[in-house]
Amino acid sequence: MKHILILGAGQSTPYLINYLLNQAEEHDWFVTVGDLDIASAQKAINNHPRGNAIQFDINDQAMRATHFEKADLVVNMLSPVFQQLVGLECLNHTADMITASYENPGIRDLNPDLNRKGLIFLNEMGLDPGIDHMSAMKMIHYVQDKGGVITGFLSYGSGVPAPEVQSNPLRYCITWNPRNVVRAGEVGAQYMEEGKVKVLSYHHVFNRTWAVEVNGVGTMEAYPNRNSLIYREIFGLTHVQTMIRGTLRYPGWSETWQQIVRLGLTNDTMPVPDLAQHTYREFLEMFLPLHASGSKLEQRVANLLRINPTGKIMDNLKFLGLFSKEVIGGNPATVADVMIDLLKKKLPLPAGQRDMVVLLHELDVVYPDEGGRKERLRSALIEFGEADGFTAMSKTVGLPAAIAAKLVLTDQLPLTGCQLPTHPVIYEPVLSELESLGIRFNEEIVPVPE
Amino acid sequence: MKHILILGAGQSTPYLINYLLNQAEEHDWFVTVGDLDIASAQKAINNHPRGNAIQFDINDQAMRATHFEKADLVVNMLSPVFQQLVGLECLNHTADMITASYENPGIRDLNPDLNRKGLIFLNEMGLDPGIDHMSAMKMIHYVQDKGGVITGFLSYGSGVPAPEVQSNPLRYCITWNPRNVVRAGEVGAQYMEEGKVKVLSYHHVFNRTWAVEVNGVGTMEAYPNRNSLIYREIFGLTHVQTMIRGTLRYPGWSETWQQIVRLGLTNDTMPVPDLAQHTYREFLEMFLPLHASGSKLEQRVANLLRINPTGKIMDNLKFLGLFSKEVIGGNPATVADVMIDLLKKKLPLPAGQRDMVVLLHELDVVYPDEGGRKERLRSALIEFGEADGFTAMSKTVGLPAAIAAKLVLTDQLPLTGCQLPTHPVIYEPVLSELESLGIRFNEEIVPVPE
Repeated sequence: MKHILILGAGQSTPYLINYLLNQAEEHDWFVTVGDLDIASAQKAINNHPRGNAIQFDINDQAMRATHFEKADLVVNMLSPVFQQLVGLECLNHTADMITASYENPGIRDLNPDLNRKGLIFLNEMGLDPGIDHMSAMKMIHYVQDKGGVITGFLSYGSGVPAPEVQSNPLRYCITWNPRNVVRAGEVGAQYMEEGKVKVLSYHHVFNRTWAVEVNGVGTMEAYPNRNSLIYREIFGLTHVQTMIRGTLRYPGWSETWQQIVRLGLTNDTMPVPDLAQHTYREFLEMFLPLHASGSKLEQRVANLLRINPTGKIMDNLKFLGLFSKEVIGGNPATVADVMIDLLKKKLPLPAGQRDMVVLLHELDVVYPDEGGRKERLRSALIEFGEADGFTAMSKTVGLPAAIAAKLVLTDQLPLTGCQLPTHPVIYEPVLSELESLGIRFNEEIVPVPE
Repeated sequence: MKHILILGAGQSTPYLINYLLNQAEEHDWFVTVGDLDIASAQKAINNHPRGNAIQFDINDQAMRATHFEKADLVVNMLSPVFQQLVGLECLNHTADMITASYENPGIRDLNPDLNRKGLIFLNEMGLDPGIDHMSAMKMIHYVQDKGGVITGFLSYGSGVPAPEVQSNPLRYCITWNPRNVVRAGEVGAQYMEEGKVKVLSYHHVFNRTWAVEVNGVGTMEAYPNRNSLIYREIFGLTHVQTMIRGTLRYPGWSETWQQIVRLGLTNDTMPVPDLAQHTYREFLEMFLPLHASGSKLEQRVANLLRINPTGKIMDNLKFLGLFSKEVIGGNPATVADVMIDLLKKKLPLPAGQRDMVVLLHELDVVYPDEGGRKERLRSALIEFGEADGFTAMSKTVGLPAAIAAKLVLTDQLPLTGCQLPTHPVIYEPVLSELESLGIRFNEEIVPVPE
């Protein structure tokens, strides 16, 4: 019997756990799900005879030793900050590892040891990163096989409510880890545009937006997603003049979030004492100079940010509850913790409503052997969740990791070391099974813009 | 014979090394200085018979094992990011540790082990943090012994050129680790003002300045320094209404640095490829949107920042060489690396010139037993470097660590565990020896402001 240890039972994991439990009998697997909150783990296991839910604290060394010892494969769905710790423990106990998170630079140092032990650590095996990489690589290899040279690569990812959901003015709902929403962009961003490298600090990311048309959805807005430059090498696109990975939202999200960032409401590193005892108004007051002119908090915030005190952005800040006289409560340590709780409270996906996942690639291609013919390829995945069932987010983040887990455990992945899903031996079987489950891209050739 | 291992031979260390070598014969010490650049270590040792210079890479495990094995005491003057690694190695090899850096939160976890082994890790043992803490604690204990209640605590630290130095329009010279100058403020800041907690994100720190009069120097500007709130507990100031630690500069520094931060020129985490091959103008162009209006780079930067294109800030940015057509060269990995090289090139302390160190405390005190009498105490240390000799920075950062090293090695420090120099058994002998070496505070009672 092979033992699978799944760490984390958050919003992105139910589909993953379900998939592995459904196939556990057939492949003789046993699935242990560990979460700080054992109730989430129990809910996911749902008394399956091939599963076990445990209360699990990654910072507890004895707990780690006990459970990693038994595992043949660890699917790590915890926060990216634990990736290296989980990796080291997997190495010590000779277990393979799969995550849906960006590869932590430090983890590459384990490569020699992984190769020696014949282990694979497969990162970025979710939706974005994950399916986006796999589908991009498939398109890139297809174009290159036809003799095309890729001069521009734009790729977008998104997890948002379905277009019909109108439950809040920001048109955003929390369908994955809200900490990632609050901390989005904090590392800044960089990309290449028309041959020029562009670098943005955190405080410019949500102002550097552009409109993107999505078939069947309408106009969305994009902001640049982290470090796009490294994907030139990862994707083998050495001649590319434009290389941009972006995140899509409904228009209006970014202009509001930009002001939340400017106020300083996303800091997750410096603990502020006694946050729970303050009202939200008092909380907001902390970010204003003591003797700022004007008397009303609303006016002073608008003055500080130089935004219109009666405009849409101010409306959104109010909707989020930042001007509320309620006491914050709970147990927030950092400013980011306060925002996370607010987003969960104010932006839930309402009962009976669906979420939506969008992936979009645009490739500009030149064919030198065809007289320099140019074309633009567009490939889009739009996936909807089931109302009151699995979210599209949980399905598209969890399935790639789940399918990869099956490939690893049935010895169908002939790779070792730290890997991203850019190699055909990974992306071909995974994309093919995704397609058989209805998760497929629509491809079209669109006019080349002037 | 006792072995002292000093890690790092940068600009803050010459006086420290000199002090320990001068007393090495008397106390039977041997001093090893390790630096990535062996020439710096050799220069500091200067062929002293009790000293040895080594090429040392903290990331090399074998090197660490060899040299920590021999050490009785490690004086760690490396970047704060290595504090925990150095601490763990000290613990493994049963060596005490002294640093001049802020205490890394993780290092407190080692307390039980340190106490068991009878080791001391003494952090924040330089100038600021260091002498500032010690002199503050001495004042606080003095006031409290007289029955005073401290309601306000303001403390300022600074290392700048002496007032007569006019070598550059920013009136700042690099006399310590320029990486700390470039990354100053990046964690944001928080403090308490008139009973209100105030929190600032990075992009507000250098705009939240105020004027401070320094006797004999004139008006300087202060910006808030990191997390002042934690010092309420560390200093035992539970009733304080104002608690602010600030950094002093000559007026004009902060308004320029604020724009450098806003442009995004201080990021030290995301490597940008091929930086060395670009000119500074091309580098600056990376931070602007591709199709920004206006044609000249200078105008477009001014537009983006909404600063005057012909004003003092723009002059300073030009002085720093950011608009230069020179190729960057060297081996910069991050944007911050480019800025560090520029600061070293453009803001050196000129030959024949002195630097200056300022520490300033202001305490507002109420005496309940004297009918609520109020007073403001002011205490100032102003120390000048020797032209072409030891800098004031090297003396004031290095001496506290050096004196503490002597106390530890001669068994005069009856403490174990992680310590800051807030305890009288540390600060009394250290301040007393500093005073005997001419480093002393001037105290005065000033009028209580309205």
